Amino acid sequence: MASGQLSRAEALACTGCRHACHVMLYSDTKSQLFGRIPIRHIILMQMRFDGLLGFPGGFVNPSKESLEEGLTRELLEEIGVAVPILEENHVESCYGPVSSTASASSGLILHFYAKKLEEEQILDIERSAASTAIEHGHEVLGMVRVPLYQTRGEGGLSLFLSHSFIGNARLQLMDCLMRFGLISAKHLHKALSHSVETHKHTAQDLESALALIQRKQN
Amino acid sequence: MASGQLSRAEALACTGCRHACHVMLYSDTKSQLFGRIPIRHIILMQMRFDGLLGFPGGFVNPSKESLEEGLTRELLEEIGVAVPILEENHVESCYGPVSSTASASSGLILHFYAKKLEEEQILDIERSAASTAIEHGHEVLGMVRVPLYQTRGEGGLSLFLSHSFIGNARLQLMDCLMRFGLISAKHLHKALSHSVETHKHTAQDLESALALIQRKQN
Repeated sequence: MASGQLSRAEALACTGCRHACHVMLYSDTKSQLFGRIPIRHIILMQMRFDGLLGFPGGFVNPSKESLEEGLTRELLEEIGVAVPILEENHVESCYGPVSSTASASSGLILHFYAKKLEEEQILDIERSAASTAIEHGHEVLGMVRVPLYQTRGEGGLSLFLSHSFIGNARLQLMDCLMRFGLISAKHLHKALSHSVETHKHTAQDLESALALIQRKQN
Repeated sequence: MASGQLSRAEALACTGCRHACHVMLYSDTKSQLFGRIPIRHIILMQMRFDGLLGFPGGFVNPSKESLEEGLTRELLEEIGVAVPILEENHVESCYGPVSSTASASSGLILHFYAKKLEEEQILDIERSAASTAIEHGHEVLGMVRVPLYQTRGEGGLSLFLSHSFIGNARLQLMDCLMRFGLISAKHLHKALSHSVETHKHTAQDLESALALIQRKQN
């Protein structure tokens, strides 16, 4: 992820760029899964309108508002609660994936933030995201929590990481997990290794499903 | 999916089997994405505790309760609303995937149901699932809607189908989409074809991420 990174000031100097801001909202928790597996942290992501998993946020126009004001506005639309994001919550800025439609001159810059909340605030966000948020059922198809644990049978983070994510959201998630000490590099490496295996099985499932639909269609 | 199918009565005759019941709750909707893309139907799935996508439901003990009573009970725990499921909502029963730990003698039988609701009921479910449901944040990490549309850039159903699903949940979803005429076989086939391609890209992303973590760990 180090390649393509730039400071917040360097990023803002690119007036011809489009700017998108996203945030990882998270909290600690003492709750346990099945009364025995520590959940430790609640991390919010969302199912986006395009069917991919990602963090809340969206496009911001720095000529009209600060990056953080714009992100706070986007958040309000998506989660229905005002959660002020400040410059101190900035984690990193980088150029968008090369595979995007952005060219060198009208590039996309991705700004990422993280903000730690209280567990009760996370619960408030989940409630309002599914009720009063104006983008519920439109830009957002639902909020989901990221499981950091591993159950017997390898359920948890490894399976979650095998989903499809927008842009560099999976890398941003993994970077923040290590950056804020939410899990160890060793734990993350193990989960990700298993994720690669899970993903191969899904490939077979998809091919089988495609063959099935082809037969039904004919 | 035809192989391994059995009638509800045949399934219940297996007293040594474990029985799991799940349901697709859905409604029609007139709302549009970005004010121009018809959403047409709302279909509810969930992010499960194990990090996979699936339908609400769970294990039922037919010696103590009917399949439908058990499913209704599981639903109440997961979505926080009483949505009575009846025998008329039964779609199919089949043996669990061969890859499961079930042996021939203590097999797993999967029962699938579908129930059409009013849009307002779906909204009620989403609200309560994120607030009063006792399994919120435990067995359920969040409810999500299935996008049936395709945006420009192929976002929508195709990307959604490329995620990781529990057991045969993706096949159950696709079967119900065609069975209830929610999308055409042609539309589904196109989405699934694109899904296979998306999935290949994710494989590359996962391998890159794994290499990155390995470097950070050393």
